[in-house]
Amino acid sequence: MVGEIDPGRAPRFTRIVTKPASSNRSTSSGAVSGAVHGSERLRIAVVAPPWFEIPPSGYGGIERVCFDLVEGLVDRGHDVTLVAAGTSRTRARFVAALPAPPPGLGTPEAPVQEVSYAAAVGRLLADAHVDVVHDHALATPLTALRAAVPTIITAHGPTGGSIGEYFRALGLPLVAISEAQRLAAPDLPWVGTVPNAIVVDDFRFEETKDAYALFLGRLSPEKGVHLAAAAARTAGVPFVIAGKCNEELERAYFDEFVAPLLGPDTTWIREIGGTLKTETLARARCLVVVPQWEEPFGLVAIEALASGTPVVALRRGALPEIVEHGRTGWLCDHVDELPDAIRRASEIDPHACRAAAVSRYDVARMVDGYERIYRRVVTSRAA
Amino acid sequence: MVGEIDPGRAPRFTRIVTKPASSNRSTSSGAVSGAVHGSERLRIAVVAPPWFEIPPSGYGGIERVCFDLVEGLVDRGHDVTLVAAGTSRTRARFVAALPAPPPGLGTPEAPVQEVSYAAAVGRLLADAHVDVVHDHALATPLTALRAAVPTIITAHGPTGGSIGEYFRALGLPLVAISEAQRLAAPDLPWVGTVPNAIVVDDFRFEETKDAYALFLGRLSPEKGVHLAAAAARTAGVPFVIAGKCNEELERAYFDEFVAPLLGPDTTWIREIGGTLKTETLARARCLVVVPQWEEPFGLVAIEALASGTPVVALRRGALPEIVEHGRTGWLCDHVDELPDAIRRASEIDPHACRAAAVSRYDVARMVDGYERIYRRVVTSRAA
Repeated sequence: MVGEIDPGRAPRFTRIVTKPASSNRSTSSGAVSGAVHGSERLRIAVVAPPWFEIPPSGYGGIERVCFDLVEGLVDRGHDVTLVAAGTSRTRARFVAALPAPPPGLGTPEAPVQEVSYAAAVGRLLADAHVDVVHDHALATPLTALRAAVPTIITAHGPTGGSIGEYFRALGLPLVAISEAQRLAAPDLPWVGTVPNAIVVDDFRFEETKDAYALFLGRLSPEKGVHLAAAAARTAGVPFVIAGKCNEELERAYFDEFVAPLLGPDTTWIREIGGTLKTETLARARCLVVVPQWEEPFGLVAIEALASGTPVVALRRGALPEIVEHGRTGWLCDHVDELPDAIRRASEIDPHACRAAAVSRYDVARMVDGYERIYRRVVTSRAA
Repeated sequence: MVGEIDPGRAPRFTRIVTKPASSNRSTSSGAVSGAVHGSERLRIAVVAPPWFEIPPSGYGGIERVCFDLVEGLVDRGHDVTLVAAGTSRTRARFVAALPAPPPGLGTPEAPVQEVSYAAAVGRLLADAHVDVVHDHALATPLTALRAAVPTIITAHGPTGGSIGEYFRALGLPLVAISEAQRLAAPDLPWVGTVPNAIVVDDFRFEETKDAYALFLGRLSPEKGVHLAAAAARTAGVPFVIAGKCNEELERAYFDEFVAPLLGPDTTWIREIGGTLKTETLARARCLVVVPQWEEPFGLVAIEALASGTPVVALRRGALPEIVEHGRTGWLCDHVDELPDAIRRASEIDPHACRAAAVSRYDVARMVDGYERIYRRVVTSRAA
């Protein structure tokens, strides 16, 4: 019925799934329908969004979390397949649903590219022998609605409005990255909360700090960097702004709100990564986080803690869960409290910050959390 | 496992699918897996895009085709379910996946609204007892990838670039609306070509014409209305422009290219419908269609033919399939041939135009075409 397909233009997935049973896979635990016990090896497919490589070379919080998660699951001995766009840089089995990340994020092309990626992923998963799929992308969970393998989704963004309607309509088990995110839409089909995490050892710790306060993140209106810069100036503290500014919205915001604030005490050092990022974080007096929305997590805040750097933050979204007021930073109810908090950042013990990161936000905790949810979902399906 | 859902905010589909076996359905033919013969009644779910009501009150070519198709299938005695956004205005069983069309077409909200609609539709279809799903929307086919019920898709737009990749990755049986569209991407899994159609009797026929040439359609750059207006002026023929102009892209194009051409001989009458539309079409000297892309169909061209109005068109996309050069209109290879063709429109017999519409583009032909494909797909699954 279906027309012949020219082999020269054949879909990429045909080359990938023609040998579904690798030698690796043949040693895996039981059938999909069999009960999986607490110590058994699981066959897990992790689906990443298409927009950045895994791990990301620069910006890409979700992609970083996906990378750390699959690496951690491999360390636990699970049979892990990472489905993503681009090329493999992980020890998990890597399946490329697209040869490279598409360019259209934030453009009118984005919907077609989202569904195109989802179609490729859906075809791959139709032939995959796995116990559970863990989906981090937007359109890909649609392919799970009528499938037999259990699928869980991590909600990485907001959960109100259209996206909340989407999760509600999907009805698939949903994992929150913070209690704030979960409580913002309590009727969604949550099955747990697993805070994002980092490899704490990847971050440099410094006990002695420089004078500057730091903003690190996208230069978007909802990140409120201009409010942070103004607060640092009021505090008489030098301010460093590190962040990408290449999408149209970012540039427009930067030109109108941030550029006029630059001067001898306020410096923009663009997007930073690698050693420059870890050093800039570790030597900062404090990180300033002033979300203008209910930010569902705040990965940069836990990176600061890992660096022994206190966090000065507005009490919004997940930040009260991450920052212990007076112990690992200062929480402010209003922007006019920020200058004093920035001044008093030196009262916070850098060792307390690092200790909080190790005990609460190291990657092992996140892997524990997801492993527990995978087993619950698989067992409840088998029962 | 899945958290409790507050009944007050329960997903709409729970209210719809709790009674899947209606009395209507119980009289339908056989089980999904049984062979379906040529005369048997089929259980067909038609999935429309979410952006306009079915039928559309104004603009909405795909939605108009969906409406005419489901009405035609009901007339043949099939058990037809229309899945769409908004309220029922059809004799088919109507299932609202959303209470109203969402507002975000062409905005950054569009991807989330597409997937949100697809999730609702996917959940509905998971419980539906149908023999075949006929999908006209963007993201909804993703939910069919791992489903048991056969799904066919009509490609209503272009088939190159990302959207071609999407159809290729989906791998679902695809129906073209013109040979031109199909030939533009011959490696896609085509299962047939079914030209769009209209209810010819809904269009008024006029043998005697007024002087004006007409453009009818969206005021978008790819529709080339400014070229049509310039050609009419060169021909010394008054020109009427009828078309919606409310999206940002349309307004920008209109201001730069169309507005400067307006004058005593060139009039813009905005979006028209109902009697005004059928009269304007029927009394035009000719319809001018100057696509600046490989337009995959051209519904307005067959509406003109039904009105006995010749079509002057560039030889692009599907137009050479719709217009018979010298019999129902004139095909031009270059815009500089348009003025002469507009002048010579009066040489075309309006009765020949109407006859072509009746024999080739009346809705019965389209229903025949899809009915045949449904039966092929269902039978091949059952075999």
